[in-house]
Amino acid sequence: MDDVSRFPVPRREDLPEDLQARIAEVEEKSGFVPNVFLSLAHRPDEWRAFFAYHDALMDKETPGLTKADRELIVVATSAENHCLYCVVAHGAIARIRARNPRIADQVATDWRKAELDDRQRAILEIAVRLATQPWTVDAEHLESLRAHGLTDDDVWDVGSITAFFAMSNRLVHLTGTMPNDEFYLMGRVPRS
Amino acid sequence: MDDVSRFPVPRREDLPEDLQARIAEVEEKSGFVPNVFLSLAHRPDEWRAFFAYHDALMDKETPGLTKADRELIVVATSAENHCLYCVVAHGAIARIRARNPRIADQVATDWRKAELDDRQRAILEIAVRLATQPWTVDAEHLESLRAHGLTDDDVWDVGSITAFFAMSNRLVHLTGTMPNDEFYLMGRVPRS
Amino acid sequence: MDDVSRFPVPRREDLPEDLQARIAEVEEKSGFVPNVFLSLAHRPDEWRAFFAYHDALMDKETPGLTKADRELIVVATSAENHCLYCVVAHGAIARIRARNPRIADQVATDWRKAELDDRQRAILEIAVRLATQPWTVDAEHLESLRAHGLTDDDVWDVGSITAFFAMSNRLVHLTGTMPNDEFYLMGRVPRS
Amino acid sequence: MDDVSRFPVPRREDLPEDLQARIAEVEEKSGFVPNVFLSLAHRPDEWRAFFAYHDALMDKETPGLTKADRELIVVATSAENHCLYCVVAHGAIARIRARNPRIADQVATDWRKAELDDRQRAILEIAVRLATQPWTVDAEHLESLRAHGLTDDDVWDVGSITAFFAMSNRLVHLTGTMPNDEFYLMGRVPRS
Amino acid sequence: MDDVSRFPVPRREDLPEDLQARIAEVEEKSGFVPNVFLSLAHRPDEWRAFFAYHDALMDKETPGLTKADRELIVVATSAENHCLYCVVAHGAIARIRARNPRIADQVATDWRKAELDDRQRAILEIAVRLATQPWTVDAEHLESLRAHGLTDDDVWDVGSITAFFAMSNRLVHLTGTMPNDEFYLMGRVPRS
Amino acid sequence: MDDVSRFPVPRREDLPEDLQARIAEVEEKSGFVPNVFLSLAHRPDEWRAFFAYHDALMDKETPGLTKADRELIVVATSAENHCLYCVVAHGAIARIRARNPRIADQVATDWRKAELDDRQRAILEIAVRLATQPWTVDAEHLESLRAHGLTDDDVWDVGSITAFFAMSNRLVHLTGTMPNDEFYLMGRVPRS
Repeated sequence: MDDVSRFPVPRREDLPEDLQARIAEVEEKSGFVPNVFLSLAHRPDEWRAFFAYHDALMDKETPGLTKADRELIVVATSAENHCLYCVVAHGAIARIRARNPRIADQVATDWRKAELDDRQRAILEIAVRLATQPWTVDAEHLESLRAHGLTDDDVWDVGSITAFFAMSNRLVHLTGTMPNDEFYLMGRVPRS
Repeated sequence: MDDVSRFPVPRREDLPEDLQARIAEVEEKSGFVPNVFLSLAHRPDEWRAFFAYHDALMDKETPGLTKADRELIVVATSAENHCLYCVVAHGAIARIRARNPRIADQVATDWRKAELDDRQRAILEIAVRLATQPWTVDAEHLESLRAHGLTDDDVWDVGSITAFFAMSNRLVHLTGTMPNDEFYLMGRVPRS
Repeated sequence: MDDVSRFPVPRREDLPEDLQARIAEVEEKSGFVPNVFLSLAHRPDEWRAFFAYHDALMDKETPGLTKADRELIVVATSAENHCLYCVVAHGAIARIRARNPRIADQVATDWRKAELDDRQRAILEIAVRLATQPWTVDAEHLESLRAHGLTDDDVWDVGSITAFFAMSNRLVHLTGTMPNDEFYLMGRVPRS
Repeated sequence: MDDVSRFPVPRREDLPEDLQARIAEVEEKSGFVPNVFLSLAHRPDEWRAFFAYHDALMDKETPGLTKADRELIVVATSAENHCLYCVVAHGAIARIRARNPRIADQVATDWRKAELDDRQRAILEIAVRLATQPWTVDAEHLESLRAHGLTDDDVWDVGSITAFFAMSNRLVHLTGTMPNDEFYLMGRVPRS
Repeated sequence: MDDVSRFPVPRREDLPEDLQARIAEVEEKSGFVPNVFLSLAHRPDEWRAFFAYHDALMDKETPGLTKADRELIVVATSAENHCLYCVVAHGAIARIRARNPRIADQVATDWRKAELDDRQRAILEIAVRLATQPWTVDAEHLESLRAHGLTDDDVWDVGSITAFFAMSNRLVHLTGTMPNDEFYLMGRVPRS
Repeated sequence: MDDVSRFPVPRREDLPEDLQARIAEVEEKSGFVPNVFLSLAHRPDEWRAFFAYHDALMDKETPGLTKADRELIVVATSAENHCLYCVVAHGAIARIRARNPRIADQVATDWRKAELDDRQRAILEIAVRLATQPWTVDAEHLESLRAHGLTDDDVWDVGSITAFFAMSNRLVHLTGTMPNDEFYLMGRVPRS
């Protein structure tokens, strides 16, 4: 079970019921259990806080910040941190959400040249800055996003998603969790 | 209320009851409400996840990783991110927990020369690496901590505290939250 | 023809015959013309030198450095330079040559955690060092590759492929050439 | 023959005739054989591609980009890569072409303060950016050069010379080739 | 006497008389002898030059650059160099001179968010640039300070204080000198 | 008088007598007045401290650290700071002291490949580290120099010369002082 974690990974049947339930739900929806659901289960309280936080930020769609945009923030900032799990897993979701089979590879490698509109490019520019040099982000940077139609809440989300995955990337580097094989191909082949 | 956040800050009486209760509790214990309890209250669900995660990692004492050690990890890694709130607030707690009025300034400015033992220095070395170049942390680095008596759970905590404050530092840079004035002096003057 | 170059792109029928012939050959083999064959055709002499150099380094298979290994050097070093064209195009070839649909995404994002053996990891470590801090590569680094069974000629190739793509990455950033859509999916779906 | 290469260096009489001819020509013109003509001769096909590419870019003079300007691009970008051979050898040619015995040392150490005009300074700024952070070069940067009178072809040359020497610098770091003693003094003493 | 220096520290009574006199004077004024007065005494000639230079720059008050401003330059630039002695010792003086018990911790950790006015922020921006990337400071940067009311002499002082402490920080890292315990609390508790 | 300083440069006859005397002395010895003697004369007290410090460190020859070695420390560390004046002026002196017309260009561009012995290479490695990342220099680094025969005093000098020129480089970037034309050729042509 090397691919899941450098730390002990509990058996699913030994997990608290609420974790088992959520894991069963994601398994039913995706067809497999993303490894991070298992690697973090080593610590049920942290697991609960992690996914509660995640869902509060990612399961949301606003005119200024779509679900696809949110995933692209994850891909761009995780690429800066060389986080293989997050780039591959959230890259898969980004392809599906954006209905664009190229977008994740583009954003992971060079978001400046990716097939994005100006609003998206402005979002990624601030997100990457917050990921890599957070102390240089100032009120003007945030204001620049409002010029692209983002509300206060959208700006908060851009920043918080970046912050949350700054944590997530480091947890993955700590545990050494690898992406499930299924993620690599998701969203690449058009459904016929 | 400039010092608290660039984003709207809800009035305490408008907050959900569980937030009000926890805020009242920390106020009673500390004599004031640390600004981050108010700036994050803009989003109650995220607030709950944030403090649940925080408490799971920080309110713990083990032979291999004391409460003081945990605070020093926060100070060292937050200093790399130039996070004023975290350096000052957790620096205050670190001084108290370590019963050393100099330790926070030392660790914030140059942990390599701080009044630490070898175990602590090894911990901060890995924490700072995970904070700044997480992709270079490998199994050997983690193993080096076990040589200093840390258990698997302690190593997990070193990494997770670092990861959690990678998030926390960025949230503070997003909101522009300043440390409360009270923190600056805490733990500096010996109680008589 | 935005995707091909910021500079003028000659029509195929206006190109010198030797370029036309080689382009027709690659089109027949791949089913499309990789954009870089067209963007560089702006300058036929440079085009000829570029592909002559490329072929001398890449169309070669030795026990110490397979064709797949050569492509992985391109992917790893081009990722450091955020070169979208090279990561996507050579990632496609790497997947095919290595018969591993995950390897290119892994090496592009975090070669340290990719599914590689020790020899391959040592090769990528030196290649990335030569790509990013060439002045720190010394005789000992090169010697370390010989310990993994590389001959003098293999070591030369590791270095020269890295050097050649240091040029190639910058040419692509100059011209703004995007990868052809076909590359993104190549080598990902097992042939049935 | 330590100064020439860490790899085997073929005897001149064993080289293919076209290499021998070109080497004899450069020897007659310069009075000595620059070491890189010998170190790269280990691989005749690569040697041919290398010098064909080199000549296509460097043996050219346009109103927007003189031969001296081209050499200064080499000096400035090679200095960023700490490439001793290229800085010393092309520094020598730059002094001669620019008829300025100080210009190479200035550009190698601090091109911002060198005796250059605005056009030259703009060229070196883009070249150094392409050498060190190629992914940040965008259409606007290239446009800025046109404002200084460079044609499309001149801009291509600025970029391609930079790219070519990104390769060349790394080949030299690979082989460990030292500059010939003759280069150090060339162009420094006024002919009487 | 570990805290004073890695190098031999002469006994006060063995020092030249002028050093003894100045040390006695600072002791009388401060109540203790700052460690750097002893660590540098290993070399009396250098000691004399060091303190003569120091006094020429720091014991001065102009409308454009107060004594407090001068200390804040030291704190901000020494923090970039992780110089514990300079941050703690000059932080203490800065608190006293600025009559602000928070200002040193703020400037050391994140001067961008410190309680400063625009003039002070402009000064620290140039000082930090000169400390960390001196080659990028140009005439325009210096001119920007004049727009905030600094005279030519003030601008010289901003630059020279930064330069002097670039030296001082490195001397402290060489000798391993620790700040005296007294500095940590100075200027933090309001006099009643 | 653009080449001397961005700040006012006093006339020689208006300078204090001791400055005039020293300037006359250096002029007689060198045949010209190095620009830095004039640019710093804007501030006589600082001028005196600067040259007193300089002479205490540089006019010294020990078995473990020759005058040539001292100049090479200046060249290597000033090159990291892109300080044209110091590289060119002290490069000239280094060539003369080391009786090697190539050594300064080598050390300025890539000291790792310069014609140095192991002791010199170890010295430059520590000096460059102290110049660029002073907080990482520890007791072990200094100890490594003792293994090459340096005394405690030699080690102090390696560090102090580096520190002094960290200041000097920044003063030159502040004033914009250019090297005198004479320096470029000094020590390059063998006396006949």
